[in-house]
Amino acid sequence: MAPETDSSQLTPVFKAKTLEDARQRARQERALKSLFEPNAIAVIGASRREGSVGHSVFKNLLMNGYTGTLYPINPKNPSIMGVKCHQSVMDIEEAVDMAVIAIPAAGVSGVIDECARKGIHSAIVLSAGFKEVGSEGAQLELALRCQAEEAGIALLGPNCLGLINTDPALSMNASFARSMAQPGNIAFISQSGALCTSILDYARANHIGFSKFISFGNKSDVDELDLLQYLAGDPQTEVILMYIEELSEGQRFIHVARHITAELGKHNKPILAIKTGRTAEGASAAASHTGSLAGTDEVYDAIMAQAGVLRVDTVQELFGYAVAFASQPMPKGNRVAIVTNAGGPGIMTTDACVRQGLQLARFSEATQAKMAASLPAEASLKNPVDLIGDARSDRYAAALEAVMADEKTDAALVILTPQTMTDIEEVGRVVARFSQLRTKPVIASFMGGLDVAAGVEILRQGGVPHYPFPEEGARVLRSMWQYSQWRERPRTEERIFPVDRARVNDLLSGAMATGRYQLPESEALEVLEAYGFPVPKRGLARSRAEVEAVCAAVGYPLVMKIASPDILHKTDVGGVAVGVKDLAEALQKFDSMTESARRLRPNADIWGVAVQQLAAKGRELILGATRDPRFGTLIMFGLGGIYAEVLKDVTFRLAPLRPLGARNMLEQIRGRKILEGVRGEKPADMDALQECLERLSQLVVEFPLIKELDINPLLAYEHGALVVDARIILQEE
Amino acid sequence: MAPETDSSQLTPVFKAKTLEDARQRARQERALKSLFEPNAIAVIGASRREGSVGHSVFKNLLMNGYTGTLYPINPKNPSIMGVKCHQSVMDIEEAVDMAVIAIPAAGVSGVIDECARKGIHSAIVLSAGFKEVGSEGAQLELALRCQAEEAGIALLGPNCLGLINTDPALSMNASFARSMAQPGNIAFISQSGALCTSILDYARANHIGFSKFISFGNKSDVDELDLLQYLAGDPQTEVILMYIEELSEGQRFIHVARHITAELGKHNKPILAIKTGRTAEGASAAASHTGSLAGTDEVYDAIMAQAGVLRVDTVQELFGYAVAFASQPMPKGNRVAIVTNAGGPGIMTTDACVRQGLQLARFSEATQAKMAASLPAEASLKNPVDLIGDARSDRYAAALEAVMADEKTDAALVILTPQTMTDIEEVGRVVARFSQLRTKPVIASFMGGLDVAAGVEILRQGGVPHYPFPEEGARVLRSMWQYSQWRERPRTEERIFPVDRARVNDLLSGAMATGRYQLPESEALEVLEAYGFPVPKRGLARSRAEVEAVCAAVGYPLVMKIASPDILHKTDVGGVAVGVKDLAEALQKFDSMTESARRLRPNADIWGVAVQQLAAKGRELILGATRDPRFGTLIMFGLGGIYAEVLKDVTFRLAPLRPLGARNMLEQIRGRKILEGVRGEKPADMDALQECLERLSQLVVEFPLIKELDINPLLAYEHGALVVDARIILQEE
Repeated sequence: MAPETDSSQLTPVFKAKTLEDARQRARQERALKSLFEPNAIAVIGASRREGSVGHSVFKNLLMNGYTGTLYPINPKNPSIMGVKCHQSVMDIEEAVDMAVIAIPAAGVSGVIDECARKGIHSAIVLSAGFKEVGSEGAQLELALRCQAEEAGIALLGPNCLGLINTDPALSMNASFARSMAQPGNIAFISQSGALCTSILDYARANHIGFSKFISFGNKSDVDELDLLQYLAGDPQTEVILMYIEELSEGQRFIHVARHITAELGKHNKPILAIKTGRTAEGASAAASHTGSLAGTDEVYDAIMAQAGVLRVDTVQELFGYAVAFASQPMPKGNRVAIVTNAGGPGIMTTDACVRQGLQLARFSEATQAKMAASLPAEASLKNPVDLIGDARSDRYAAALEAVMADEKTDAALVILTPQTMTDIEEVGRVVARFSQLRTKPVIASFMGGLDVAAGVEILRQGGVPHYPFPEEGARVLRSMWQYSQWRERPRTEERIFPVDRARVNDLLSGAMATGRYQLPESEALEVLEAYGFPVPKRGLARSRAEVEAVCAAVGYPLVMKIASPDILHKTDVGGVAVGVKDLAEALQKFDSMTESARRLRPNADIWGVAVQQLAAKGRELILGATRDPRFGTLIMFGLGGIYAEVLKDVTFRLAPLRPLGARNMLEQIRGRKILEGVRGEKPADMDALQECLERLSQLVVEFPLIKELDINPLLAYEHGALVVDARIILQEE
Repeated sequence: MAPETDSSQLTPVFKAKTLEDARQRARQERALKSLFEPNAIAVIGASRREGSVGHSVFKNLLMNGYTGTLYPINPKNPSIMGVKCHQSVMDIEEAVDMAVIAIPAAGVSGVIDECARKGIHSAIVLSAGFKEVGSEGAQLELALRCQAEEAGIALLGPNCLGLINTDPALSMNASFARSMAQPGNIAFISQSGALCTSILDYARANHIGFSKFISFGNKSDVDELDLLQYLAGDPQTEVILMYIEELSEGQRFIHVARHITAELGKHNKPILAIKTGRTAEGASAAASHTGSLAGTDEVYDAIMAQAGVLRVDTVQELFGYAVAFASQPMPKGNRVAIVTNAGGPGIMTTDACVRQGLQLARFSEATQAKMAASLPAEASLKNPVDLIGDARSDRYAAALEAVMADEKTDAALVILTPQTMTDIEEVGRVVARFSQLRTKPVIASFMGGLDVAAGVEILRQGGVPHYPFPEEGARVLRSMWQYSQWRERPRTEERIFPVDRARVNDLLSGAMATGRYQLPESEALEVLEAYGFPVPKRGLARSRAEVEAVCAAVGYPLVMKIASPDILHKTDVGGVAVGVKDLAEALQKFDSMTESARRLRPNADIWGVAVQQLAAKGRELILGATRDPRFGTLIMFGLGGIYAEVLKDVTFRLAPLRPLGARNMLEQIRGRKILEGVRGEKPADMDALQECLERLSQLVVEFPLIKELDINPLLAYEHGALVVDARIILQEE
């Protein structure tokens, strides 16, 4: 993820277009609020039977200090765990705003009806037996969804573990998890309920606290976007973690997530996500290179990058990162100071930082002098600062004092190995003190196990992120720096170029009218020309007499090709000449081509000879677009030729592209040095390439019936660029 | 690491060439044995002062049950910790085979003298103050090394933490570490002493046991190779872990490590290593592409790959892998069966396996039927096997029974999330039972923290490698599979081709005689031709009269270039013509070239016109060699053109190359699909390319004065290959 452009800081996420919109929105907000912060909860299907979901959830609510009122609903029991039961929500006299439902799937619809009549705004459906069990369940779920929508009930689930809100004012554990989450400033939302049980257990062992903990199951109604919107305004939440298997909508996710990650000023909240199901599928049937390169996972990479969401691979990373994001200020740059009491681990840490693209801070003379005054002669005052094996906490304090104050330091990574003289706990206190200044991020790695445990506990209590080995600390700093860049990125407006829409409209409808859904090179070039792309000069010499004028207009040297709708393989009839140098040669080629074509294909309709500018040698690139059924149109950029296919050095973004987003695409390919110029070559015209990407974005946004588009190659020059070949595939319906 | 070829299973590592060699070797072996298994130890510098190295090491020896005899040496105390002191080793009446030295650096030489006179075979020098403190220390160390060598004393250190041998028959902790290592079958050798203290602490917390634990410090005498050779024959050691900052010798390391990892039959021992200091350096001054692409780290990657050593990046990986290698059989393939009680984590695990290049086993009908008989209808019988959230241990047992017996399964990955009904500990017992069959590797991930802790402990006691999250389990299985392939790889002999050595000798000495160290294209092609490389047909037309014969021999179309030692930039004088088609054109070019050269460079010595075959279009590759001052000659292979520079898609090996090693190079580049053929292209002639690599290896081995060599490009065809351009740089001295 690199900085991208956005202008939507001016646009509220909840933008009501009409009065009815606004009312609808207000109802939704109220319903979501009642889900997270209910005053009274009906637990439908609360049970005395140990091990049942209805028992677990009621017990969790009752035993974890919920501050509202609980109403167990069970027609068979007068009371559950000492609390009076009602037969139905209809029997409750007081107002109830939320229902937790733990009865068999078949009965859920009936109780939702009752909830609606009772005026309940939201429900958590824990029951399984819906979409996840097959088509019958899916039908049941669809009906449930319509019912809830009609009743204006926000429905979480079905088939979920529930929801925990640790806010001490509420203290609600509306889940059937084995345990309660500890309070904290991290929100976790998960599409997998089973993962939630593991995460809660893991978090308990690792002292990780949560503001909200949400399992959203089949997301028949409330989905990740609703949850994100609630969390955006939740004062307890400072970091949001997500586990998702699929997103419902790409563009809206980008819009909402961007808002949260970078448009709330000091209330910005980082979002970290695991997206599973990475194996590419479905894309194999695509007709274009772009289509076949855009596997499902690339779509998600693009969405995450544009949303400012940090994608991580493992649960361990997710929480490792979260702890740092939740406790430390973001770094202003990537220059790390390493302070260590051991040389080997100092080298390991240096390696890890370099591998993550971080720099080692170069300390000023003054900083080194300050350290020299307090450290022994054998200590190394360069980065990494090596305090030597017999260092005690005073040396750590002196070094941290000096390097943290150096304006060339953006973050500190403190390494400790448990040597004979090391006062581990005191070092922990020193590090915590510097971390509490909250000026620059401080991360620690006390390498070991039992000996360092007490020191690690002091770090934890002091809010210092700790990792048993320095590599993870370096990775965390890298992602904090990435997020920092994202937040601070310049914002630019989407550019709309003046183009010839009518001409493209004619071309596309003309093709479709004759049942053609694949536009050949010539038509594709016309479309691109209408959208202001640099295309080769071309002309058609219909007769020998026209050769001179057409060729003069195109300019020598040029390419000539026999023009006939009936001749597919032009070379077979000697119908291609490359590098024609002058009029004499052009006339001779015209004669020989037409003669040979007429002789070899006597029935062909021969229009004449197409003449096209011979492209100068340039760097071969590929640009493309492909429509994803769920997320919209992906724009692709990469190295052209066989390298696009083989090395897959391409990058994707969802359209529309803003200027900086387009620029980032150019800079994100592995082979970007080819654009910068190698072997004394001049850099490619980055402005021209960026503009091509933006124009492509405008084209596919304005013509949604373009299904796939390849510009391959686009030649990049020191000045300008040239589309050499292109194809367009239209949506067939 | 992929399988490579080797014939040295027939060659013992310790191959004595002469009687004196054999004697020397026997002395060394005896000395090393006394270092690891001494009957009596003198602790020189043993001290009463708490916190001092001399106190710590003596206490560690005394308190950890050393079964031999300890002699503290300290002139100032009559006894230490109740044990009678001697003034000097000379005063001990009994035989002593090892000395531990913990006195200031300046005094070490004196006591080594005494040790020699006492007949002590080995010494561990814990003292710091040598090479690591600068040039004065380095001199002291060099002197020490010579002294030890002369006296036939094997010297570990100086500046090390010491050595631990947990063998119960010895139980020796000759280190000043904070704690003793637990017994186990993993040997750890480390160039960093500080890291050792962390590792011991980490291992204690994670119940990891060691056979030997060795800090070798400045390795002035005993180095990683000596240690590996000892560990090769150590019956307690089954897995070897290394932390290295630099290797002393590349070729010998490869030889010794290969022997241990793959040539000891059932006594093969996997070696896992961390090599730090990855940042490339020094290579920037290289004159060839190959030289500039061969950073230090690539050298180590090549060495590790050829040695069969698994290189890992972090300490966590090192031990995560070691535990599995130390307890499980190696998989016979890469087909993994996943058994889980939760869908989401099942998807995560599938993703992780696919990302690691593992396959999901496809179970037979019989296997699925077996599972169907014991599992509920909602369970998924395909891979991953989902036992559903309410699964208890009987379902795990039924599923494991079925999938482990399936011949399409090579390994099992068992996932558990702590749900309400889960009998975690019993599941632990079930998994341990299947692991103890030792037929196929079984790895577990009980995802969570506190709730799963007791189950994880049962796994540990049952010898099942456990990782908190499945991604690490998948990584471990991948590396076990890699090692498995390495052990089973076919072995081939190095091929020696009949070549014209004399001609190369003449060419190289001719160039050097005239002070030329950079051979131009023409000479480089001659060298390669002499070594049987396919080079373009060439000739020199010294006069107009020779044009016809020379061109006919070369064949049209061809390339003509003015031949003159005085004309550097041939195009400036119109001295290059590409694609000359026939004799008429050739004669015309000869005339115009010589005329224009004579006119523009009247003083130039013009030899005539060089004629060369025009190469057909082919896939551009780069081959190269560069000499590393410490390790020998590296052979490089990769994609040619600007892509080699920009995408760095190249791979290295140390010469000499065996046939399979050369083949592996071809298969290890990212762009290998370019060789296989894209867009309907035929595959490149892999046999021809492999032979080029082998011939290149032979050339640089037979002519060590070749410092750098680039073949760029080598064109690959469906049949054969062609060297189009080459340069050779010779060693200047």
